[in-house]
Amino acid sequence: MTLFDAGRPEPATGPPAPTVTVRATVAYDGAPFHGFAANPGVATVGGTLGAAIGQVLGRSVELTCAGRTDRGVHARGQVVSFDAPAEGLDVCALQRRVNRMAGPAIAVRDVALADPGFSARFSALSRSYRYLVLNRAVPDPFLAGRVWHIEQPLDRYALDLACDPLVGEHDFAAFCRRPKRRDGSEASLVRRVTGARWVDEGEGLLRFEIEATAFCHQMVRSIIGTLVAVGLGRLSAGDVLGILRGGDRQGAGDLASPQGLTLWSVGYDGWSSVL
Amino acid sequence: MTLFDAGRPEPATGPPAPTVTVRATVAYDGAPFHGFAANPGVATVGGTLGAAIGQVLGRSVELTCAGRTDRGVHARGQVVSFDAPAEGLDVCALQRRVNRMAGPAIAVRDVALADPGFSARFSALSRSYRYLVLNRAVPDPFLAGRVWHIEQPLDRYALDLACDPLVGEHDFAAFCRRPKRRDGSEASLVRRVTGARWVDEGEGLLRFEIEATAFCHQMVRSIIGTLVAVGLGRLSAGDVLGILRGGDRQGAGDLASPQGLTLWSVGYDGWSSVL
Repeated sequence: MTLFDAGRPEPATGPPAPTVTVRATVAYDGAPFHGFAANPGVATVGGTLGAAIGQVLGRSVELTCAGRTDRGVHARGQVVSFDAPAEGLDVCALQRRVNRMAGPAIAVRDVALADPGFSARFSALSRSYRYLVLNRAVPDPFLAGRVWHIEQPLDRYALDLACDPLVGEHDFAAFCRRPKRRDGSEASLVRRVTGARWVDEGEGLLRFEIEATAFCHQMVRSIIGTLVAVGLGRLSAGDVLGILRGGDRQGAGDLASPQGLTLWSVGYDGWSSVL
Repeated sequence: MTLFDAGRPEPATGPPAPTVTVRATVAYDGAPFHGFAANPGVATVGGTLGAAIGQVLGRSVELTCAGRTDRGVHARGQVVSFDAPAEGLDVCALQRRVNRMAGPAIAVRDVALADPGFSARFSALSRSYRYLVLNRAVPDPFLAGRVWHIEQPLDRYALDLACDPLVGEHDFAAFCRRPKRRDGSEASLVRRVTGARWVDEGEGLLRFEIEATAFCHQMVRSIIGTLVAVGLGRLSAGDVLGILRGGDRQGAGDLASPQGLTLWSVGYDGWSSVL
């Protein structure tokens, strides 16, 4: 059928082509991107990925993601969803072709059909992030873009203690950038953190893991900055509860560098993007 | 003492300043460098490292390394040696300052005084290399500069079988670039391989480890290229012995990409650079 084929149905009057909801798990190195959200004129994860998917499908797509990662933040198990024409959809070919176009910094780990109405964002029940700190004198060239390198020894016991007050349902205003709403109302910054802990990976590499129903903007990096301030002795572990209750961003530590942060996994009803 | 100090001893007639031999273990990401060997006008590991050490010591130094890695090849435990003035030498400060200058792609892991006459190259008893192959359909953004990504499934059993003929003392002419000597004589390409094996790291990541007294130029990458040809069924495991005995480079596989290769460790009498 050509563009001027007389038999071509009018798009406006014909029945809409049936579509399906597709979900994909995506890993990316955040270094070359200005964050996830598509932004004309700059390279973003969402922009690059959406363009590749759109090119394969032959129509523009609107991507919804589980967590809009900031500039420089990585992902191992980001989840995106989008609508695609049902007819002739080959998810394996889609994955293969998108990986050729969007790689090597972005890799689609899997693609599957989702239940109707599935949203990578609104169907998500939990998100988990990991943060790497290299705590030793000597840097590691192979971790250069993946860790926050801190030469002064951190107090491991204080780091562990400082995690405890974070777990549970709290207003995280002290650790978040409050979003501006057009109508002037204030968005809730109440979130439920279900786990927060430090794990020693050996040779000075410390991994922080945190899981919550959802996170506010800059929340993980602000928490990490505060915990590291405790580890360095600038704050005490007991201060964290006061900062949390006070709700004042001035009390929290500086934002941790984005390069150490990875959106690790997103949990849905019955499955997680990364086990 | 200034440059025109009348009391300044004549360099040619005064006793030479006592020097010591220093050894350092060095890790680097090979991606930004045109190999190890210093080469004016291009960024090399040896050039960058030597300039930093020279700046700290206040005099030029001549670095000797255990293995002159090619362009793009990484190192976890490269060893270098050089002479330094004994007076006022602080190896800890030297390490710290060099790491500030040469990082983040180069990191000096340790610095120590060596026995007189120690040479990182000539005192070395063994070298071990590792090579990473990612053998699965989906790439990994976090390993993008560290692996050879091969989508077609490799025959693991054939890969293991093909290693066996390599172990022992052989003329590796089939796997090496023969160095040209000015006098027209031929350099020996006889080397003793003490171990060669594949290790599964999981999720499709395969690690090849090879240890030898020494390696000829391009030997590891040529061996990997040949083993992968076996894994893909283009050669049989039995062909490797014939290629080795034939001594003809045409029989061997193509050179494997340098980004998967890491000089892992160098062994000396009583110690190794990486355990």
